[in-house]
Amino acid sequence: MTTVRRAVSADRERIWEIFHAVVASGDTYAYAPTTSREEALALWFRADTATYVAVEKDVVVGTYILRPNQPGLGSHVANAAFMVDPPAHGRGIGRLMGEHCLEEARRLGFRAIQFNFVVSTNLRAVRLWQTLGFQIVGRLPGAFCHTRLGFVDVYIMFRPLDRAG
Amino acid sequence: MTTVRRAVSADRERIWEIFHAVVASGDTYAYAPTTSREEALALWFRADTATYVAVEKDVVVGTYILRPNQPGLGSHVANAAFMVDPPAHGRGIGRLMGEHCLEEARRLGFRAIQFNFVVSTNLRAVRLWQTLGFQIVGRLPGAFCHTRLGFVDVYIMFRPLDRAG
Repeated sequence: MTTVRRAVSADRERIWEIFHAVVASGDTYAYAPTTSREEALALWFRADTATYVAVEKDVVVGTYILRPNQPGLGSHVANAAFMVDPPAHGRGIGRLMGEHCLEEARRLGFRAIQFNFVVSTNLRAVRLWQTLGFQIVGRLPGAFCHTRLGFVDVYIMFRPLDRAG
Repeated sequence: MTTVRRAVSADRERIWEIFHAVVASGDTYAYAPTTSREEALALWFRADTATYVAVEKDVVVGTYILRPNQPGLGSHVANAAFMVDPPAHGRGIGRLMGEHCLEEARRLGFRAIQFNFVVSTNLRAVRLWQTLGFQIVGRLPGAFCHTRLGFVDVYIMFRPLDRAG
């Protein structure tokens, strides 16, 4: 049984462990594999950002953030980012957090969610977001320097938050 | 005769005047029309950002910024933003800064430039960037809340920086 809730201060250590494990592979996020604990937590707990964790048997196994993608006249579109602890992959934690995020974004009054940087070779993520109603609305040629594959394309994905969704 | 150079501290007051005049209309930038001087200058002079001004007869008539669009593994793609003092529109200052920006981005080693938020109804900007080699690579439905027109689409524009460009 996995639950999703707002993160608290006591979650910071596990969030850092997961962040570090995810960016270390250099295949899904732009954050440098050498990103420090301080930098990672600063961006994951930014003032305009709501931070969540997925918990299994009292252990944090995933985390996501939700925030406005732009200031002022663009702030009705949310941005979100998701990380699952690598050993916990394949158990539906990403999907659970994604569904939670859609609900939260609606509840907070956002009209849409935009992902700015979905690495095209991260097929698991691309497919997950497509099954949750996101569409690829843009393609950035060679915008990600993949640790193993070199320059690969990046997708921008977008999902309006209709009432019926 | 208009020249473009790096901004210095003494340019801050004119940059703020231009920023405020541009965002006040609420038709081109996401920054709220109520953005404060302090917020505006903080983002225009961010640590990772190079700031430039266009100068006519010792008066700053435009400004632009250039910076990495993403951290680490995405930092080979630049982002830039341009503002021309409204009374100086139509004299080619935006184009001059755009051409300067292409040179600077190449000089600094960027492989491409990406604009994340070109308001689709800002035809002057869309056309200018197209004539400078940018392509629309994505469309964000209703992502800008235009002060007069309501929700309108936003384009993502992208230009690789080949040697021949």
